[in-house]
Amino acid sequence: MLTVYSEKHRLRDAKTELHGGTFVRPFECPERAEIVLARVRQEGLGEVIAPRDFGLAPVLKVHDPDFVRFLENCWEDWVAAGGEGEALPNVWPTRAMNGKRIPRSIDGKLGYYALAGETSISDGTWEAARAGADVVLTAAEHLLSGQGQSAFALSRPPGHHAAADQYGGYCFLNNAAIAAQFARDKGVERLAVLDVDFHHGNGTQNIFYRRDDVFFASLHGDPMDAFPHFLGHADELGEDAGEGFNLNFPLPPGTDYSRWRDALDEALARIVAFKPGLLVVSLGVDTFEQDPISFFKLKSDDFADYGARIGTAMKAVSVPALFVMEGGYAVSEIGINTVNVLIGFEGA
Amino acid sequence: MLTVYSEKHRLRDAKTELHGGTFVRPFECPERAEIVLARVRQEGLGEVIAPRDFGLAPVLKVHDPDFVRFLENCWEDWVAAGGEGEALPNVWPTRAMNGKRIPRSIDGKLGYYALAGETSISDGTWEAARAGADVVLTAAEHLLSGQGQSAFALSRPPGHHAAADQYGGYCFLNNAAIAAQFARDKGVERLAVLDVDFHHGNGTQNIFYRRDDVFFASLHGDPMDAFPHFLGHADELGEDAGEGFNLNFPLPPGTDYSRWRDALDEALARIVAFKPGLLVVSLGVDTFEQDPISFFKLKSDDFADYGARIGTAMKAVSVPALFVMEGGYAVSEIGINTVNVLIGFEGA
Repeated sequence: MLTVYSEKHRLRDAKTELHGGTFVRPFECPERAEIVLARVRQEGLGEVIAPRDFGLAPVLKVHDPDFVRFLENCWEDWVAAGGEGEALPNVWPTRAMNGKRIPRSIDGKLGYYALAGETSISDGTWEAARAGADVVLTAAEHLLSGQGQSAFALSRPPGHHAAADQYGGYCFLNNAAIAAQFARDKGVERLAVLDVDFHHGNGTQNIFYRRDDVFFASLHGDPMDAFPHFLGHADELGEDAGEGFNLNFPLPPGTDYSRWRDALDEALARIVAFKPGLLVVSLGVDTFEQDPISFFKLKSDDFADYGARIGTAMKAVSVPALFVMEGGYAVSEIGINTVNVLIGFEGA
Repeated sequence: MLTVYSEKHRLRDAKTELHGGTFVRPFECPERAEIVLARVRQEGLGEVIAPRDFGLAPVLKVHDPDFVRFLENCWEDWVAAGGEGEALPNVWPTRAMNGKRIPRSIDGKLGYYALAGETSISDGTWEAARAGADVVLTAAEHLLSGQGQSAFALSRPPGHHAAADQYGGYCFLNNAAIAAQFARDKGVERLAVLDVDFHHGNGTQNIFYRRDDVFFASLHGDPMDAFPHFLGHADELGEDAGEGFNLNFPLPPGTDYSRWRDALDEALARIVAFKPGLLVVSLGVDTFEQDPISFFKLKSDDFADYGARIGTAMKAVSVPALFVMEGGYAVSEIGINTVNVLIGFEGA
């Protein structure tokens, strides 16, 4: 399996995450990608290539231009306004505020464009996020050219929490959605996104919620208990043309592999029935039992098993799979668990 | 003029405010009320009394019961969940998240009930906020019993950013709105709230936005540039029955007293035309030129002048005035500026 990787992910190296009312070093840190890359090489998964530059056009097919401009300029605007730490929002337009106008000041803009406040914007964040989009686009292009049945976009920062015009949850550009839209624009008529990250892929769901050409399925911690808290319920089925094309499996604290696997099998059956031309997998491995910010109980072997299940289901109907790196914060095992999924898929 | 004051305000003594991407000691600190109280005594403004306990009934006329329960239990829930610092939200239901369900976890609840993230909830916050409501209710009761034409509720923490079910901007319970509703329930048919704090009184506006019995007028920093950023525009005129009963004067950075005074005179003319039975003044003195987090240019003498203008306008139509302490963060001058308004009013 081809892996696409850019060293530019290291430019996303924020110093502060708001966690439990204190600042901690971000759980989403550069070592994550380095350790996965080392494991890819150690296991001989396949060639590792650098991305090519796609420019902003495919990003702007998913994200609002004003939002992209905000991300591009945020750090400079923040420094110019006298921000002492990294850029964090401190007010936002929830229900008692109308939020129809985008404020002029960077403090106001941060609140307008954020959906979560743990994620500081730091120097280099935009460059890393842009490179991450190129990573998934390069992997998608590779698959679409008919070279192989799978590819791995080892992108960082992750993307699945980012909506069309909002960032948060360590995510800035929605890599999975950008790849999916790129595939649509290259002629794939229908495709599915399967999100196996511990956290609900609220951004991806939101982006495709009114569409019937992209089927979205997510297995995740129940939002009543887990981040992102406000999306990911079982009764979110899609709207308008998209009704029936969104499938959520919110799962309770302590969920073990047998329960998780049952949900996966159901999601895969629905995906197969949808007859997609491509599967994008938002691959977070924070379902691992030792993950520091999650509450599922998967063991390392389970990752290989579910990779094989995805592989068996997709290969039976000749659907190629693009794996896109999302979360996973048990850093020492992130390489093992991630590559277990990919090897499991390949061996199916 | 009677002053009502409770020592319980000191229980609101948070250690952390999120400011410029760092933690600072909160600008909204206990010394504020102590310095105002000392100035009240130094200038011989009048008697200072402690509040009586009104219970939660008048609070629940303005605030949602679930929100009040959240405030009451937040600190214990946060500590039980392992929060290490003070309680701060890190995700919220803005436009890409539906936010119809209230999460179970305290992290989710904080995001649901917050509208801003600078304000940590600390041990004692609820007790101080409750006492602050008793302070304004005691002052309102005093006025409604016909004792005098004015009273000063030296309450802390402030209230005008708090909506029916949201806190933020240093505010938890909306003291001005609670007093206004109490007066309505005691037979005052129509009343006005004049908000002269530097920041828009978004909570008060939101609470009365669909009502024609409470006229709300606010002079404040343009939300395009200033907190709370998402409410306070000139075209917010009220809705439904409330249409025409909301009046905002967003003013630009550097606004001096002559411009501010023109807006005040217009607001007072509109208030007089409304024929209220009572005026509640949300008295923030962060319009002061040396305020550390604001951008107007009022000098200490200007506060006496505008107090006199309010006094002249209200006394001409025999409308009593209840002054409710809101913001003001230039701590060394907060006593002078606040009491200047009250003395200006009395002397008119």
